Amino acid sequence: PRGHVTLVGGGPGDAELITLAGRRALAEADVVLHDRLGPTDRIDEWAPGAELIDVGKTPGHHAVPQREIERLLVARALEGLRVVRLKGGDPFVFGRGGEEVHACRVAGVPVTVVPGVTSAVSVPGAAGIPVTHREVSRAFTVASGHVPFSEEELAHLVGLGGTLVVLMGVGTLPHLVAGLRRHGMAAEMPIAIVERGFSAGQRTTVSDLGGILHRVAEVRPASPAVIVVGEVVRVPETFGCEDGRP
Amino acid sequence: PRGHVTLVGGGPGDAELITLAGRRALAEADVVLHDRLGPTDRIDEWAPGAELIDVGKTPGHHAVPQREIERLLVARALEGLRVVRLKGGDPFVFGRGGEEVHACRVAGVPVTVVPGVTSAVSVPGAAGIPVTHREVSRAFTVASGHVPFSEEELAHLVGLGGTLVVLMGVGTLPHLVAGLRRHGMAAEMPIAIVERGFSAGQRTTVSDLGGILHRVAEVRPASPAVIVVGEVVRVPETFGCEDGRP
Repeated sequence: PRGHVTLVGGGPGDAELITLAGRRALAEADVVLHDRLGPTDRIDEWAPGAELIDVGKTPGHHAVPQREIERLLVARALEGLRVVRLKGGDPFVFGRGGEEVHACRVAGVPVTVVPGVTSAVSVPGAAGIPVTHREVSRAFTVASGHVPFSEEELAHLVGLGGTLVVLMGVGTLPHLVAGLRRHGMAAEMPIAIVERGFSAGQRTTVSDLGGILHRVAEVRPASPAVIVVGEVVRVPETFGCEDGRP
Repeated sequence: PRGHVTLVGGGPGDAELITLAGRRALAEADVVLHDRLGPTDRIDEWAPGAELIDVGKTPGHHAVPQREIERLLVARALEGLRVVRLKGGDPFVFGRGGEEVHACRVAGVPVTVVPGVTSAVSVPGAAGIPVTHREVSRAFTVASGHVPFSEEELAHLVGLGGTLVVLMGVGTLPHLVAGLRRHGMAAEMPIAIVERGFSAGQRTTVSDLGGILHRVAEVRPASPAVIVVGEVVRVPETFGCEDGRP
């Protein structure tokens, strides 16, 4: 039998926010490689009888390196197995999906990609913040904060306007805030940090560029968190509810 | 009984790319307002017995105006009904979801939002193009091409680099291409137009800024289409397959 690999975007963490196609791929899987960013609460139910391999960081252990994940995907598929790589969000939004597709193609292993609900849009939305809103923002930029932005990137982000969404950016937040201010973004520009979106512990911290670092020192936000900079952050206020929820 | 409204992001069109939460909301709905952008092939099966209201453009008829859609949502919910507004993609990515949430809140109608798979990421992905890719693009900007970009926007889009995704941009493509070139983007910058993503008629046209307008005159792309500008357009080529599919 010919094996294959399916990359599944599992969405932002809530088990109900995976797609039907994602569920189907899991139900048919022989092997599932997962990590803490994907929806794993019901993985035993979703992929009954499948071999489950945790490739993420677990307490006391390092994450499996990316090249080793790719090697595992290919090796299991070449054994004739149906392999699912379950990811948080969407595989192509900072999910290294392109690298995994490439590894499969090079090895001659059939690979398909099931897109998912990206945290970049849905986590702000869970806090009541639309990334686009008529008369407020007609564009949004999604970036990784894993590495600090260059001066050029900061200058053009400020100039472009619209909404800025930063993933994996809690660690570099002071650099981002100072950089945006230095390139002329107003101290009054609203900013929100949404932690643990769609979990029981979801928490939204709203401030402005001038005040956010003081707020962060108080609330000490933890990863995973999504940062939103832009006038859309004020949209939920007009509904008169604190975090945009009903 | 108290009615309520649920905005459901139906994903990019493929019936398998709706979420479990979206399916659940449809299954419980008394009324569904839908249009041609959402996944409607199986709507009778998904929302059995529900009143179905087509608020989109149908041949010979205009679309229902946005304010009238909002009025319908609120009126049906105030009658005690469970109302679903089924949308294409995600409700907050140019989906006017924020306006519909606002209309419900103003009327005191409980409203929730179920995020969806956005076409901005998934349609390029269906053509094998990842919006982010290690060493190639660490950010992407999503914009509507409904109205032409300003000179300032064009200048900063060129300066920012990363991937540019334009929705509803086929009509303004000549303006976009000329504007990006005028602000210094290279004629060799790759550009792709992906029409009818996830349908049997999916078609990808790849060229560069210097050549795309000639290609467009030949292939005459139709809406809905997603335009991608950036080096990530070349990623599928490295797999040696024309449109990124296995």
